[in-house]
Amino acid sequence: MQLGIIGLGRMGGNIARRLMLNGHQTVVFDRNTEFVSTLAAEGAKGVADLPALVAGLEKPRAVWVMLPAGAPTEDTIDTLSQLLEPGDVIIDGGNTYYKDDIRRARDLAQKGLKYIDVGTSGGVWGLERGYCMMIGGDADEVLRLDPLFAALAPGLGSIPRTKDRVADDDRAERGYIHAGPAGAGHFVKMIHNGIEYGMMQAFAEGFDILKTKSSEILPEDQRFDLNVADIAEVWRRGSVVSSWLLDLTADALAGDPKLEGFSGSVADSGEGRWTIEAAMEQAVPVPVLSNSLFSRYRSRGQGTYGDKLLSAMRFGFGGHVESGKK
Amino acid sequence: MQLGIIGLGRMGGNIARRLMLNGHQTVVFDRNTEFVSTLAAEGAKGVADLPALVAGLEKPRAVWVMLPAGAPTEDTIDTLSQLLEPGDVIIDGGNTYYKDDIRRARDLAQKGLKYIDVGTSGGVWGLERGYCMMIGGDADEVLRLDPLFAALAPGLGSIPRTKDRVADDDRAERGYIHAGPAGAGHFVKMIHNGIEYGMMQAFAEGFDILKTKSSEILPEDQRFDLNVADIAEVWRRGSVVSSWLLDLTADALAGDPKLEGFSGSVADSGEGRWTIEAAMEQAVPVPVLSNSLFSRYRSRGQGTYGDKLLSAMRFGFGGHVESGKK
Amino acid sequence: MQLGIIGLGRMGGNIARRLMLNGHQTVVFDRNTEFVSTLAAEGAKGVADLPALVAGLEKPRAVWVMLPAGAPTEDTIDTLSQLLEPGDVIIDGGNTYYKDDIRRARDLAQKGLKYIDVGTSGGVWGLERGYCMMIGGDADEVLRLDPLFAALAPGLGSIPRTKDRVADDDRAERGYIHAGPAGAGHFVKMIHNGIEYGMMQAFAEGFDILKTKSSEILPEDQRFDLNVADIAEVWRRGSVVSSWLLDLTADALAGDPKLEGFSGSVADSGEGRWTIEAAMEQAVPVPVLSNSLFSRYRSRGQGTYGDKLLSAMRFGFGGHVESGKK
Amino acid sequence: MQLGIIGLGRMGGNIARRLMLNGHQTVVFDRNTEFVSTLAAEGAKGVADLPALVAGLEKPRAVWVMLPAGAPTEDTIDTLSQLLEPGDVIIDGGNTYYKDDIRRARDLAQKGLKYIDVGTSGGVWGLERGYCMMIGGDADEVLRLDPLFAALAPGLGSIPRTKDRVADDDRAERGYIHAGPAGAGHFVKMIHNGIEYGMMQAFAEGFDILKTKSSEILPEDQRFDLNVADIAEVWRRGSVVSSWLLDLTADALAGDPKLEGFSGSVADSGEGRWTIEAAMEQAVPVPVLSNSLFSRYRSRGQGTYGDKLLSAMRFGFGGHVESGKK
Repeated sequence: MQLGIIGLGRMGGNIARRLMLNGHQTVVFDRNTEFVSTLAAEGAKGVADLPALVAGLEKPRAVWVMLPAGAPTEDTIDTLSQLLEPGDVIIDGGNTYYKDDIRRARDLAQKGLKYIDVGTSGGVWGLERGYCMMIGGDADEVLRLDPLFAALAPGLGSIPRTKDRVADDDRAERGYIHAGPAGAGHFVKMIHNGIEYGMMQAFAEGFDILKTKSSEILPEDQRFDLNVADIAEVWRRGSVVSSWLLDLTADALAGDPKLEGFSGSVADSGEGRWTIEAAMEQAVPVPVLSNSLFSRYRSRGQGTYGDKLLSAMRFGFGGHVESGKK
Repeated sequence: MQLGIIGLGRMGGNIARRLMLNGHQTVVFDRNTEFVSTLAAEGAKGVADLPALVAGLEKPRAVWVMLPAGAPTEDTIDTLSQLLEPGDVIIDGGNTYYKDDIRRARDLAQKGLKYIDVGTSGGVWGLERGYCMMIGGDADEVLRLDPLFAALAPGLGSIPRTKDRVADDDRAERGYIHAGPAGAGHFVKMIHNGIEYGMMQAFAEGFDILKTKSSEILPEDQRFDLNVADIAEVWRRGSVVSSWLLDLTADALAGDPKLEGFSGSVADSGEGRWTIEAAMEQAVPVPVLSNSLFSRYRSRGQGTYGDKLLSAMRFGFGGHVESGKK
Repeated sequence: MQLGIIGLGRMGGNIARRLMLNGHQTVVFDRNTEFVSTLAAEGAKGVADLPALVAGLEKPRAVWVMLPAGAPTEDTIDTLSQLLEPGDVIIDGGNTYYKDDIRRARDLAQKGLKYIDVGTSGGVWGLERGYCMMIGGDADEVLRLDPLFAALAPGLGSIPRTKDRVADDDRAERGYIHAGPAGAGHFVKMIHNGIEYGMMQAFAEGFDILKTKSSEILPEDQRFDLNVADIAEVWRRGSVVSSWLLDLTADALAGDPKLEGFSGSVADSGEGRWTIEAAMEQAVPVPVLSNSLFSRYRSRGQGTYGDKLLSAMRFGFGGHVESGKK
Repeated sequence: MQLGIIGLGRMGGNIARRLMLNGHQTVVFDRNTEFVSTLAAEGAKGVADLPALVAGLEKPRAVWVMLPAGAPTEDTIDTLSQLLEPGDVIIDGGNTYYKDDIRRARDLAQKGLKYIDVGTSGGVWGLERGYCMMIGGDADEVLRLDPLFAALAPGLGSIPRTKDRVADDDRAERGYIHAGPAGAGHFVKMIHNGIEYGMMQAFAEGFDILKTKSSEILPEDQRFDLNVADIAEVWRRGSVVSSWLLDLTADALAGDPKLEGFSGSVADSGEGRWTIEAAMEQAVPVPVLSNSLFSRYRSRGQGTYGDKLLSAMRFGFGGHVESGKK
């Protein structure tokens, strides 16, 4: 099949490559012309702007937008909606808020355009491992584009089959699902990222205890001199916490056991926050997912106003002249 | 009555003063001889060491130890136990772990000595407001010492009576209770402090949001320029959150609304941690009390190993070269 | 002054009463005609519908809407906006989401109408204690209505003045503030309620530990038989946790120490959730406020899907045939 | 080599089997004589009591105790310590608190006995997958027993090697480590289980949101009808959350997507709590690990005293007659 791709960064560029490796054609655009040239040299048809991209595709056209969520994606889809024709489809493969998908699908349908949201997991490893995709939109349209999704997905691979699994739809086993109508793909991806935050924080807290166990915060006779790189490595084999995140942890600790290459300031993207909002809309208690997000906030600031107020109260009731009182 | 007092810091000194104001006699000791002289000038009988303190008291002697929990208190009680005679009583007014009380009461009983633990709240304000006391130990002995407790307690004061309250024991209304056997006093005080941590953190988080609402973290058209000193003041009147901690907050913000006098590093004492341990022994979920404690840990460190590991994982799976990557 | 009041429930009815006690006139409406008759008998001018209410007020009219947030308030303000004339003011005294205030103020301004949001704390006690009010809107309009706010507020009362407080604006000390433009009043009230959730949960967890300390979850020799009613009472005097919520706790425990009159299912209103959303917009960590909300969710459901999944995993990796496996 | 094994339950029995499969000899005992007969039929030397077990082993003897932590393990080791001779070694493969290991190693050393603690992960899957082992104790003794550990461990298997890993000690890659002196093995295993709790709770919360998204708690037009079994399955391929716990989740959901076979009451063992205690000793904030534990407490009780107190306060200040008021 043929696919237009807008946005050739870490994700979009490799999506084009994986499709071409599987015999599909791509028409690619990025504001950065170097990215376009590079992919053109690898077999893609590079274009200089959106009209050229639309002109370069056969009807019904399919255009995959792989840009940062928010204004970049929104503006691009807005422009595309004026260039495309009824029957064409826009695919948003980024990390869009699912309520934006629902709105867009409704608005685009009024112009006869189709809209598909694809929550795409795989990061920098997707080219090699394939992309795990959670897809929302019209079922027929998702089926029509199946050759593209099948090519991008990891496939059955060497992962053991789930025992007892009986399903009419074998796409899940090949690494992609049609989750439901527009928005459902990004909703499932959002929850995936929420869980990811929680798992990461669980490892972070555990390794923090392991590391601190050898520090001067404890009297010397209570310390253990633990090898965190070996611990991550051994847990990869036969333990309950074995996981891809643990593999990455073992990688990182093998090269830099003190993690001196990192400052400890951790970013967060929208999905963590949206997951908490979704939970609150549904009255689902999410202490772990929320605290994972808050720990990231906390990692980025110090001497917060709230902390200062705690010290002020302590000073008020107990005259505690603590380190916190200047 | 007559009371020996060991430890004349912020708490012990004022306890002696409040007793003397109420007509009681005190025999006082502190390693810091200045503290002893000061109180002697105010009417106390100052002594130079523990044997002198014991010698200066009539039988059955009562000695109030008001020292930091842990070794200072433990060592002093150990020494006293060798100087005192059957029928004498040791009172620990500090912040001792309640399991230590239980052990001590058992050990001292074998020497014929009595032991009373008094959780004492009131801080630097106790001299004026009186001390709220939670007492553990033998009921008869607590009764025998009642004149001392009655003098130290706030008394009925101007606080409105609790409607529907029917009780044989009016001590609670006068600001002290006999909570149960040895350890029960400090147990109740420990929970008091656990709750205190939670209330303080609730205010800290709320005022943090209020303060940040006017900061550049938000686009300019989403900010409110809120007067936090006025907000604290207005809540003191008729709102659901009115409390002594809010009064202290209003005090602090009246003089220093930006809290520039504080660094934001917050200490914690043993009670917060022991409260969590007690909760876990009883399988009681305490997300708020525990997170209040963890927020204090967090206020004292930055760039933790756990935070660095989060960045390392993000770098591993997504190539996120974030601020956290050096 | 004269004020129209719509909604005569627990809050609205007493607001009318407190205003009348202070010499103001009220024109009142409620769908429940009994509420209207009752207040009419106490001196209010009762009316049968919104047009009659508008007709009964002198220009520039002031109408206080005291209805549940969401559709009831929204619909009423919509109707009022068609009946009122330029220069009139609508006051929303309910628990509206502050972003709705901002939108409404903008929309109403286009019709020449003014809009004021009043976060009102005081509950069933407001008639007697006065209402603590956090007001958003145009400063001049708030000043024009000052006689009404001054009458509703608690006033200086017997509460000790905050030391060091220097302020041009003495309204905060009398129990009301002009917090900022439209929305600022409800924003501050929202944070107030967020803090309230945290303080309540801190007490809930603490008393849960106290109560469980005497239960069979512990071996008999580790139990204390604590009197929770006495503990709440004693903390009211001189302790750090003394607060109005503690007064209410003491009230409740005096009559029903086992709290047998309550099932343990706890409702939550919008403010708790909106507080968390505001915190996340500003990247403020709020582990205590959020966990207070989640504890309420948790109190209302059992056997959640998440809990079942935990059991399923445990069964999967360890063959744990636990109580959770049917 | 030869190994005595005490405790032939889910873990101990399969440990014996895996050793025998690898050519080692076992002398086995369990209070349940059936377990002994079964293993004897498979090639083990079954014995009827501890003296017989000791008598059946060549010096220096090695005895693996695989019993529930606490009294069963403690009593057995106490008895063994009286039967064994200098140079013999006791191995505790259970889930013992690491501070008990430190004490035991010290006490046994005085009798010339050696002590090794082995944190053993693998559950019911260990026979097939091998056991991931974290070992504490004297380095030479751990080396002497290496043939046993090597046989029990998973080995290199088909798991990809960690890139950049350079290590003198290849045991971690084969699934076992010598973590440090006595106690270090169980300390690392304890943290492993703490992390496990956090990861499980992250999945539980995420799937709870997914499931609730299709429930009547939301207005019909906001629901998605999500297939949770397919979602678990798809995440197994190429997603960031792929892990063994996710594999188990997919297994469970494949057979019972509504998890009707589980009540939702979740047990916890000591490690979760000990992990929090260790964190508090080291002032490490662990909001995720602690809330995972508290969620389990919460899953087992409803209508807690704390929840009732929340309702009582709400009733007190607002007259809220909620579902929680009987």
